[in-house]
Amino acid sequence: MSDHVYKVVELVGSSTDGVEPAIENALDKAGDSIRQMRWFEVQETRGHIEDGAVAHYQVVLKVGFTLDD
Amino acid sequence: MSDHVYKVVELVGSSTDGVEPAIENALDKAGDSIRQMRWFEVQETRGHIEDGAVAHYQVVLKVGFTLDD
Amino acid sequence: MSDHVYKVVELVGSSTDGVEPAIENALDKAGDSIRQMRWFEVQETRGHIEDGAVAHYQVVLKVGFTLDD
Amino acid sequence: MSDHVYKVVELVGSSTDGVEPAIENALDKAGDSIRQMRWFEVQETRGHIEDGAVAHYQVVLKVGFTLDD
Amino acid sequence: MSDHVYKVVELVGSSTDGVEPAIENALDKAGDSIRQMRWFEVQETRGHIEDGAVAHYQVVLKVGFTLDD
Amino acid sequence: MSDHVYKVVELVGSSTDGVEPAIENALDKAGDSIRQMRWFEVQETRGHIEDGAVAHYQVVLKVGFTLDD
Amino acid sequence: MSDHVYKVVELVGSSTDGVEPAIENALDKAGDSIRQMRWFEVQETRGHIEDGAVAHYQVVLKVGFTLDD
Amino acid sequence: MSDHVYKVVELVGSSTDGVEPAIENALDKAGDSIRQMRWFEVQETRGHIEDGAVAHYQVVLKVGFTLDD
Amino acid sequence: MSDHVYKVVELVGSSTDGVEPAIENALDKAGDSIRQMRWFEVQETRGHIEDGAVAHYQVVLKVGFTLDD
Amino acid sequence: MSDHVYKVVELVGSSTDGVEPAIENALDKAGDSIRQMRWFEVQETRGHIEDGAVAHYQVVLKVGFTLDD
Amino acid sequence: MSDHVYKVVELVGSSTDGVEPAIENALDKAGDSIRQMRWFEVQETRGHIEDGAVAHYQVVLKVGFTLDD
Amino acid sequence: MSDHVYKVVELVGSSTDGVEPAIENALDKAGDSIRQMRWFEVQETRGHIEDGAVAHYQVVLKVGFTLDD
Repeated sequence: MSDHVYKVVELVGSSTDGVEPAIENALDKAGDSIRQMRWFEVQETRGHIEDGAVAHYQVVLKVGFTLDD
Repeated sequence: MSDHVYKVVELVGSSTDGVEPAIENALDKAGDSIRQMRWFEVQETRGHIEDGAVAHYQVVLKVGFTLDD
Repeated sequence: MSDHVYKVVELVGSSTDGVEPAIENALDKAGDSIRQMRWFEVQETRGHIEDGAVAHYQVVLKVGFTLDD
Repeated sequence: MSDHVYKVVELVGSSTDGVEPAIENALDKAGDSIRQMRWFEVQETRGHIEDGAVAHYQVVLKVGFTLDD
Repeated sequence: MSDHVYKVVELVGSSTDGVEPAIENALDKAGDSIRQMRWFEVQETRGHIEDGAVAHYQVVLKVGFTLDD
Repeated sequence: MSDHVYKVVELVGSSTDGVEPAIENALDKAGDSIRQMRWFEVQETRGHIEDGAVAHYQVVLKVGFTLDD
Repeated sequence: MSDHVYKVVELVGSSTDGVEPAIENALDKAGDSIRQMRWFEVQETRGHIEDGAVAHYQVVLKVGFTLDD
Repeated sequence: MSDHVYKVVELVGSSTDGVEPAIENALDKAGDSIRQMRWFEVQETRGHIEDGAVAHYQVVLKVGFTLDD
Repeated sequence: MSDHVYKVVELVGSSTDGVEPAIENALDKAGDSIRQMRWFEVQETRGHIEDGAVAHYQVVLKVGFTLDD
Repeated sequence: MSDHVYKVVELVGSSTDGVEPAIENALDKAGDSIRQMRWFEVQETRGHIEDGAVAHYQVVLKVGFTLDD
Repeated sequence: MSDHVYKVVELVGSSTDGVEPAIENALDKAGDSIRQMRWFEVQETRGHIEDGAVAHYQVVLKVGFTLDD
Repeated sequence: MSDHVYKVVELVGSSTDGVEPAIENALDKAGDSIRQMRWFEVQETRGHIEDGAVAHYQVVLKVGFTLDD
């Protein structure tokens, strides 16, 4: 594994349900164009508020994937 | 929307149930005195431990609201 | 001056025209309720994009004012 | 409480189920050797991806416990 | 204690005598309008210099207080 | 809006005229290949100096755009 | 000295009297189990408030000690 | 040079031999698809351990390249 | 260019007119004693407020110059 | 692998020869008491200077190891 | 005051007596060569340990002084 | 050693050969005008790329030296 090269992209996923679904939505969408995703790191957790309650969560995450074929 | 001014306050919500309920408790309580809350950002996630398990979660968050009337 | 106490609030100003007007809009609006503002520090500069161009700038700033009477 | 001394250790918990279970797994395991844990702070949230979905969450946390007897 | 909500304000205290008196001056003044202060965290320590010596110390601190009644 | 996924790219724009033109140059160029840009955040402001004066400004910014179609 | 290996631990000391006594309390307690402590770095300064005044100071510090025998 | 626009990507290179070879491996691989790379910045240096020794180094780096044609 | 050595100094420029003039004032003044300045990086943007409006902008910047002759 | 718990310790290794040997010295020494080390992250690189040249390099690193048996 | 230019230098002061005396020692020594010092900011507080107790405190501070004559 | 005062300067060294030679070049050049250098800390590691390979490494470092006589 020692000579692999990875690329890292930054994504923002969102969900009305919580932090984990927002992460999963981001990966699900990104998986359409990126294969071989290996890890993620949460950069920020935030969200929008409507009528005094959380309207949806947004999670900014970095996703690493293998650049090798 | 371009000439709005927002104010940002820092709150700490807590809950025995998890991260999202702690956020929602903070917004719920803050909504008593702050109207027109628009977004939040999580600054820190922490908690207290009792008998070797999580007693409650605490989430420090910034909340932005419109200053205009 | 050595025994003054200051309070610091966080504001977000915006403007279609640039960074400085966004700062000035924030101070102008905040001045309605805060007297004796003394200094500001820019925390973040960002903005929204429409049709591939800057729609408006947003500047997050901290503003310090005297708490003494 | 004012003269207590605490020690802080850094742990990484993981879980296939989410952020809170990963925290609880870390505390549960650490509780075998550390008594009198008092608080935790989340340092990082990340995870591994398999087949385009979250395989498991990893949470890096600091845990404080009383050094006094 | 698990369902309390706290608000956090940022203050700058100053004193000609040192770091601890600057913190205490800030709390003393803030106590006029904020009841139920619970904790503080030092954000920055700085000061002004006159004639090559410290004229006064300034300490920027965050103060958390209970929002519940 | 709650289930959108965004991608974030990092760009460096430059201009001999100032901070705002450097941001606008970056967006203008990026708009050739990225549609549906929604927001930007300034990461760094810097520049080159020639003959003791600013030769050009460089602004590092993150730009978010919708990944959905 | 060039081939020594150090280990670093994180401690929280507290004192009703101020920042320096909190540091000294932490070292004093840690010295029961750690010999050959060499340096410390302050990570955070905070405290608890009772009746509008500092009840005690807490100082989070890293302490380095020689791992060699 | 003042009106160029750059794009910045994040890569992770690895090598069994050290920090510099890990950087060079990342650039070598990235050069297959990115032309006109101009600069890099190291973000993190880390690695994996096997049998108590470094198995390979990993270097996270940002790479800037000209977006102009 | 590969064997040059640079020195970096930190300056604070100010101007009643905005961010760019504050940078230019700093470079203009520094140019009296520093030759061969090559680049700058903005560290902080702040300012003083009088009568509810910006009295002047202050920009903290690092300036790099060639140490070689 | 998803339910493992790791502990992270902070070490400082040093060497007259360079960054990689300092890392290896730290791991070599730590391996006497810590089995099952898995990864490291460099936190800081520094060193001492004697007679205008590097006397030895010091690398501060975090090392993660399995807490499970 | 709006067109002044300041230079900022970084100093490390030390004292066996505490944080404030370490700051004052740094300013006192620096005052031999720098006139017109105006403000300081503490960057780090640390120290050396001998026989399990603080041998001396070290405070890293930035000091700003007027560059104008 | 407890009453020494140090000054810290920021330098950028570069080398076609790697990180350590870039550090050594910076110290070597700085040693022409600074005597009594005591320690260094790496702030950033970066470099320029030509033809898809590292043209030279640049290391930003802080260097502390004794201000005493």
